[in-house]
Amino acid sequence: MAQTLPYKSLIVVDRNARLSLHIQVCNSFISLITNGTLQPNDLLPGSRVLAGLIGINRNTVKLAYDELISQGWAESIERKGIFVLSKLPMGSKAPIARPATDQDEKNAFSWNNNLGHIFPNEQLQHLTLAIDDGFPDVRLAPVDLLMREYRSLSRKFYGKGFLKYSTAMGSEELRSAIQRYLAHSRGLVISTEQLMITKGSQMGIYLASRLLLNPDDQIAVGVSNYGSADDTFRNSGAKLLRIPVDEEGMNIDELEKALQRKKIKAVYIIPHHHFPTTVTLSMERRLKLLNLAKEYRFAIIEDDYDFDFHYDNKPFLPLASIDHHHQVIYIGSISKTFAPALRIGFMSGPPAFIKAAASLRQLIDKQGDTLLEEALATLYNEGEMDRHFRRSLKIYRQRRNSFCEILKADFNNMIEFKVPEGGLGIWANFDAKVELKKVAEEAARKGLYIGNGTYYHNENFSPNAQRLGFASLREDEMGRALDILKRVL
Amino acid sequence: MAQTLPYKSLIVVDRNARLSLHIQVCNSFISLITNGTLQPNDLLPGSRVLAGLIGINRNTVKLAYDELISQGWAESIERKGIFVLSKLPMGSKAPIARPATDQDEKNAFSWNNNLGHIFPNEQLQHLTLAIDDGFPDVRLAPVDLLMREYRSLSRKFYGKGFLKYSTAMGSEELRSAIQRYLAHSRGLVISTEQLMITKGSQMGIYLASRLLLNPDDQIAVGVSNYGSADDTFRNSGAKLLRIPVDEEGMNIDELEKALQRKKIKAVYIIPHHHFPTTVTLSMERRLKLLNLAKEYRFAIIEDDYDFDFHYDNKPFLPLASIDHHHQVIYIGSISKTFAPALRIGFMSGPPAFIKAAASLRQLIDKQGDTLLEEALATLYNEGEMDRHFRRSLKIYRQRRNSFCEILKADFNNMIEFKVPEGGLGIWANFDAKVELKKVAEEAARKGLYIGNGTYYHNENFSPNAQRLGFASLREDEMGRALDILKRVL
Repeated sequence: MAQTLPYKSLIVVDRNARLSLHIQVCNSFISLITNGTLQPNDLLPGSRVLAGLIGINRNTVKLAYDELISQGWAESIERKGIFVLSKLPMGSKAPIARPATDQDEKNAFSWNNNLGHIFPNEQLQHLTLAIDDGFPDVRLAPVDLLMREYRSLSRKFYGKGFLKYSTAMGSEELRSAIQRYLAHSRGLVISTEQLMITKGSQMGIYLASRLLLNPDDQIAVGVSNYGSADDTFRNSGAKLLRIPVDEEGMNIDELEKALQRKKIKAVYIIPHHHFPTTVTLSMERRLKLLNLAKEYRFAIIEDDYDFDFHYDNKPFLPLASIDHHHQVIYIGSISKTFAPALRIGFMSGPPAFIKAAASLRQLIDKQGDTLLEEALATLYNEGEMDRHFRRSLKIYRQRRNSFCEILKADFNNMIEFKVPEGGLGIWANFDAKVELKKVAEEAARKGLYIGNGTYYHNENFSPNAQRLGFASLREDEMGRALDILKRVL
Repeated sequence: MAQTLPYKSLIVVDRNARLSLHIQVCNSFISLITNGTLQPNDLLPGSRVLAGLIGINRNTVKLAYDELISQGWAESIERKGIFVLSKLPMGSKAPIARPATDQDEKNAFSWNNNLGHIFPNEQLQHLTLAIDDGFPDVRLAPVDLLMREYRSLSRKFYGKGFLKYSTAMGSEELRSAIQRYLAHSRGLVISTEQLMITKGSQMGIYLASRLLLNPDDQIAVGVSNYGSADDTFRNSGAKLLRIPVDEEGMNIDELEKALQRKKIKAVYIIPHHHFPTTVTLSMERRLKLLNLAKEYRFAIIEDDYDFDFHYDNKPFLPLASIDHHHQVIYIGSISKTFAPALRIGFMSGPPAFIKAAASLRQLIDKQGDTLLEEALATLYNEGEMDRHFRRSLKIYRQRRNSFCEILKADFNNMIEFKVPEGGLGIWANFDAKVELKKVAEEAARKGLYIGNGTYYHNENFSPNAQRLGFASLREDEMGRALDILKRVL
């Protein structure tokens, strides 16, 4: 039957492919054999016939057959031709290969699939006008300067082993630059052994979670909290203990009551402009939290991703800066201040903890992006990052003010909010009559992306509220966006 | 006593810092208060005195004191001056803050610290001449082309949301490019839903490990195996089941015996040039392994990081290409073929598995490096990657041959090895008399880095052997390197 096979369509060769033609032909035959189309003892077409059928040189076919024989798939029999080997190593006839479908998982192996919700930005990428969750304006990022550094670095280090493997702690240069920056900007005095570069604050949260939390450990988080952090802690098998959050941030007295009842391994806290509600933890609570950490021996995971965005120039010191017993793991982000797609952040903690985090990171992706790290180090050292911060801070303050004025003027009866001291978004509580899901759908039809609020929901928290990011919108865009939103409401 | 404090040294201000001077002064006082140097009811120095001491404007000091009062640290008493608040929220006196030391971990929280050995390349970065483990020659990487792409991309997408968050699956463009590349280069036909971009093959191993393995699950690996993979599986809590490896790769008959005895969740295998011993899995064993996977329902993690380096142009098809039951998770690397510091790889598997891997990846670092991914996509689509492969393959083949000739000629009595069909390193078994530790030390003194063999050791494997990477050495460097090695031996 073999001669009758439609070889013209079965044997597909691609002249542009890297693989030499005869190997391609050989591979096609192996597929036909392994998927059962060709059976043991089948006769293969003569080299001249096949060469004619698929339009390649006859010698190429001969080479392919030699290859097939040398790989143990076929044998050549004097004056008869080339046959599929009678005794093939493989077992039963298999179906013809095809791209896998979800159905295949049932027949194949099993895996853990208890993962969190997908970050909601598919739509965000496509609609041109968006009230996002509180992103920076990527148009402000000094991309040209970054590119300038990339070029000079790649020239400078070219062939100097610069592109070999580096270390999981991150670039020495960048770690020193960030060490100085932390001391200047927030009085956080640490050694570079206490500092590692991460891929955004998310990797800091993941590494800390994996190192601190074992299955069924308890971690305290806000009743309202950053969903990706919740998912990450759950992924480590930990149990979430929800602590109320009010105008002064997490209620530390409630935390203390919980500590008296049960062992808590760690507390995750966003002290500046808590996500999503933008409240800031009061100094009194900060100090009480630090003392509880000392007394009950738990770790504080301080996610201060938003520190750099203060509009009244009165940032509190981070917990880490007034932490005299090294209970605090301090996590920060540069992605937020520069551009989300450039995943750079940092994590600080006791040297041995950072060392452990670095060796875990090595199992995940070996190291960070050397080129980006070295380039950012230069931008810090030349003061470009400072200039960028000052410049965007000024612009964001202006945008926050304009945005809030419009909300006050035009949405007074539908949206309740507090002007945030910092950060890139407003926590807008909508009137009970407003159905956010419908609003989001209607707005999308009018060309505006806006979330429907469900992203912030968890088992204990489901307000009729949505974060409104003002930082990424120019005044004109802001006007158009809020105009659409108003019409929808 | 407060007046007698050496404020000149205690209050440190930095005029180049982002933080305004008065906030810096305020923060210094907060530290002095929280670390106990300043006690409740202590009188703060007069603004004129302090201004003189630290050489700043008196009004700046006044602003600092206002800030201190508004933050609730101090109070102003008519005609007396400014005092540290009598009732501070914090508890007992704390030691003065200092950078943390390893000692601190004893006093602080605890964490998991069961991690693997650190990748041995610190020394490698510093010595100019190195016989590495089998790295590519970064000097061959088309960095200029990459930079050209970076520039045009950053212009093209500037302000188009290009630097916003993207997806955890990786760039659509790059996934399509790699999909085509896999079909051309190794007959692997998959849909883009079966493909995700990773940060090097290591991230593929990590994600697969986290999804497939739960504590005490069994995973089968070679008696000799890639150490980072072993560490990653252990990090998921899995138990390693060591299967013998011979000249034809992993002994699949031994695997079958093990399967009859116990449940095995997955098999990790490096079918082309197994690490470290460079043996290739025979076709017969490949087919038997696939049939066992189908029969016993386990996943095959196929780490084919080395596929692109074949010198005799006879690559076997990957297991994934002849896998008709979708038991195979296929992991590949672009870092290896381009430059280790540009962490890019890919993983393929059933769509639902890849989806789960992407949502786990989102918890780790949200997404990859968009700029690099888009740039590489263009290099693939313009055929530049192909040209790069062909070019380096030619050069590496030549280097392999020269290297092996020298070994045969000059090290015949001390080193036993087989010429590898592919890959970037040679597995060199040293004569029992040779002490590799001493060799490495002596060579380092003479300016040559070479490993001492311990990197490949595990509980079941400790040969007197070392991988000798030939690919990163030009002929002249090769000569010098092997000359030093010869003198040392």
